[in-house]
Amino acid sequence: MTDLEGELRSAVGAAHVLVDPDLRAPYETDWTRRFTGTARCVVRPASTAEVVAVVRACAAAGAAIVVQGGNTGLVGAGVPAGGEVLVSLARLAGVEPVDVVEAQVTVGAGVTLEKLQTHARAAGLDFGVDLAARSSATVGGMIATNAGGIRVLRHGSMRAQVAGLEAVLADGTVLTRLGGLAKDNTGYDLNQLVAGSEGTLAIVTRARLRLVPLLPARAVALVAVAGTEAALDLLTAARVQLATLSAAEIFYPEGLDLVRAYGRLPAPFGEPAGAYVVLECAAGTDPTDDILTMLSTCPAVMDATVASDRAGLERLWSYREAHTEAISAAGVPTKLDVCVPLGELTALVAELPETVARVAPKATVITFGHLNEGNLHLNVLDAGDDSDNRAEDVTDAVLRLVAAHRGTISSEHGVGRAKSPWLSLSRTPEEIAAMRRIKAALDPDGLLNPGVLLPD
Amino acid sequence: MTDLEGELRSAVGAAHVLVDPDLRAPYETDWTRRFTGTARCVVRPASTAEVVAVVRACAAAGAAIVVQGGNTGLVGAGVPAGGEVLVSLARLAGVEPVDVVEAQVTVGAGVTLEKLQTHARAAGLDFGVDLAARSSATVGGMIATNAGGIRVLRHGSMRAQVAGLEAVLADGTVLTRLGGLAKDNTGYDLNQLVAGSEGTLAIVTRARLRLVPLLPARAVALVAVAGTEAALDLLTAARVQLATLSAAEIFYPEGLDLVRAYGRLPAPFGEPAGAYVVLECAAGTDPTDDILTMLSTCPAVMDATVASDRAGLERLWSYREAHTEAISAAGVPTKLDVCVPLGELTALVAELPETVARVAPKATVITFGHLNEGNLHLNVLDAGDDSDNRAEDVTDAVLRLVAAHRGTISSEHGVGRAKSPWLSLSRTPEEIAAMRRIKAALDPDGLLNPGVLLPD
Repeated sequence: MTDLEGELRSAVGAAHVLVDPDLRAPYETDWTRRFTGTARCVVRPASTAEVVAVVRACAAAGAAIVVQGGNTGLVGAGVPAGGEVLVSLARLAGVEPVDVVEAQVTVGAGVTLEKLQTHARAAGLDFGVDLAARSSATVGGMIATNAGGIRVLRHGSMRAQVAGLEAVLADGTVLTRLGGLAKDNTGYDLNQLVAGSEGTLAIVTRARLRLVPLLPARAVALVAVAGTEAALDLLTAARVQLATLSAAEIFYPEGLDLVRAYGRLPAPFGEPAGAYVVLECAAGTDPTDDILTMLSTCPAVMDATVASDRAGLERLWSYREAHTEAISAAGVPTKLDVCVPLGELTALVAELPETVARVAPKATVITFGHLNEGNLHLNVLDAGDDSDNRAEDVTDAVLRLVAAHRGTISSEHGVGRAKSPWLSLSRTPEEIAAMRRIKAALDPDGLLNPGVLLPD
Repeated sequence: MTDLEGELRSAVGAAHVLVDPDLRAPYETDWTRRFTGTARCVVRPASTAEVVAVVRACAAAGAAIVVQGGNTGLVGAGVPAGGEVLVSLARLAGVEPVDVVEAQVTVGAGVTLEKLQTHARAAGLDFGVDLAARSSATVGGMIATNAGGIRVLRHGSMRAQVAGLEAVLADGTVLTRLGGLAKDNTGYDLNQLVAGSEGTLAIVTRARLRLVPLLPARAVALVAVAGTEAALDLLTAARVQLATLSAAEIFYPEGLDLVRAYGRLPAPFGEPAGAYVVLECAAGTDPTDDILTMLSTCPAVMDATVASDRAGLERLWSYREAHTEAISAAGVPTKLDVCVPLGELTALVAELPETVARVAPKATVITFGHLNEGNLHLNVLDAGDDSDNRAEDVTDAVLRLVAAHRGTISSEHGVGRAKSPWLSLSRTPEEIAAMRRIKAALDPDGLLNPGVLLPD
């Protein structure tokens, strides 16, 4: 056995190779507390060259690597299964000046979404993806998992923001493509192959990101509707009538109760409703009137409250955004993240409770998500002890239901370790075989994130 | 030697295996007449199953395949180098009903763009990509080369329209992913890897395509400006002030003269100008007033003419769209398709004539293209005899100039056989090596489009 730790210390400095269990611990358990494992050590490179040195040392020693950004992932893709070298990219946190003419910026993989947003806004532009974990989630992790969030309706997922990447392959080869040209048809789109590959093909070290116009005026409506079908009617009206629509989120009474208890929030409406929709418009000038006109003419609206001042926006958004924290405070959830064609959404929501109850009678399902894409986050609480595998049974039952509705087992969280046993519900044997061929071509020894995405 | 032709006849029917030189000829020379080669035979499968049978027969015989759609490619990617089995996908021409709720449609690879547009518009929707070769170019070819065209400004390139693909690998494996979900993070994006791979990784047989709103009201302005810098000033004003902007094209006096002579068109303005810009807005209601307001306040405008009736739109567009045909009528051009950052565009245009004159003193460069993306089509006429390799010298000199301005050697036409010797001007050795690894993983015997894209 080589002295891998010694080589890693030479590569990044002794202070950035953590072998002590107390120092490793924050990196070894994910945010949901569901995924945890012991790393051989935690390495914190501060540059692409240091990442290359780390990867080469690991490759020479045959040591597997797990890659971690802000550790906000939800499918166990960024924490060790056991024994890997954990490479944290948090120190790759450089930001270059915003290129206002091209509306692009190059940043390090460890830059947080919040830092990126602040940087872009200071130049009069904005970043197209936003999500609740913005203070911790990093650009590299968001690219690796093709993060979505609340503005996909307007700007697309993370893949759509990637104009270029720098990434390190398992043998230490650096792929650099940061020119950010608007069009470039000179061969395979390696950047888009690496995006969404969950660290299994390459380690993203820098990214050239597209920026979007900064829209300073926002208006938000929280709308009470009868249920999923009515929410879809509201969505249709909003999409047609609101050119400035930037978000359309849905949640349900169970989630509202949990969020209200957690955040001590008042009831948003005098009467309870079957479902709640948050609509946001973003524009150069106040879009409130457009929202009010749409709401006043849409039969699906039972009640609605609209805000356009900062405090009001935050208050209305909090009913939706506090879901994740409120759920986490209530227990260790089994998190599912699914997407079905919009025509199947109502049936899926209706069939969920019975499907879960059949395998976990005491479980509660908290459902919320991104209405426009048919993307629901299902959080199952009190599924039962891990000892009797009840969480696995719930996952299996729900994912099979989703597949029967032509849906996907992972819409924006990725597959990770959590969903890899169910990958065949969303991908054909031929696709999985093709993915393995690509994985073997770029990482023949399987050193990068083993056990993530592709089933063992 | 096996009786490959006999097996191909069994696979697709004797009438669809063309071995007679006269029957093969229309498939063996491309539209520009610059690329030509002899095929072993031309095979015309009519279904995915027939494509699989053809590919398996070729694989068993070790016979190379060249894939052809509408034969409108401009870089020699769809015509034989010599001796390949030419697989024409023109008969895969089925269209499924438009899914209006999801705004998607599934069509065969051999469907022409025009047929797709007609089909989408009959359902009240439209297709996001448009280009002058619409009556011949097919969906499969447009995906293989990631076609761009005149509406990329509004809707993105062909890749952005692909919601799903069915494709056949070199061993006959069928990858099918036509669900078209708005979000799906379950592994590598094989569809986006195949898109733009120019037939070297897989044969696209069907596609699930995104559709866009049908915008019935259009207005076009043909604008005279002093030159490239002024055109960029006009573009900036148009992008800020015209939310409905759908195209911004540029051409120059040499091209205008050629087009006028070819199409017997009148001079568009009383005075000649340094450059001409075509702006199009598309909306639900007539956008003419918005265009007029923008033009009246933009200092870059020397003169302008605006139309919104059908005849007027066609008349103004013809100055731009007739370029390709007018050039082809004038000779066999050396076609280059490049893209630089917008900040480099003026310098590139200024340096082009001298760069070409140094290697081909009698040549003429006709320049036109897509202003918004910095994407210029450079057509070099009268470069000299092929015998003295003057076309290659011109290509080499221009592509090096483009690379020096941080540009790409192929913006939307692809690399094909034409540009593969220059691939290293746009991609690093590491990227080319990674592409070869992926090619070898999916097509280990190199049967699909050998000689295309990757240099020998």
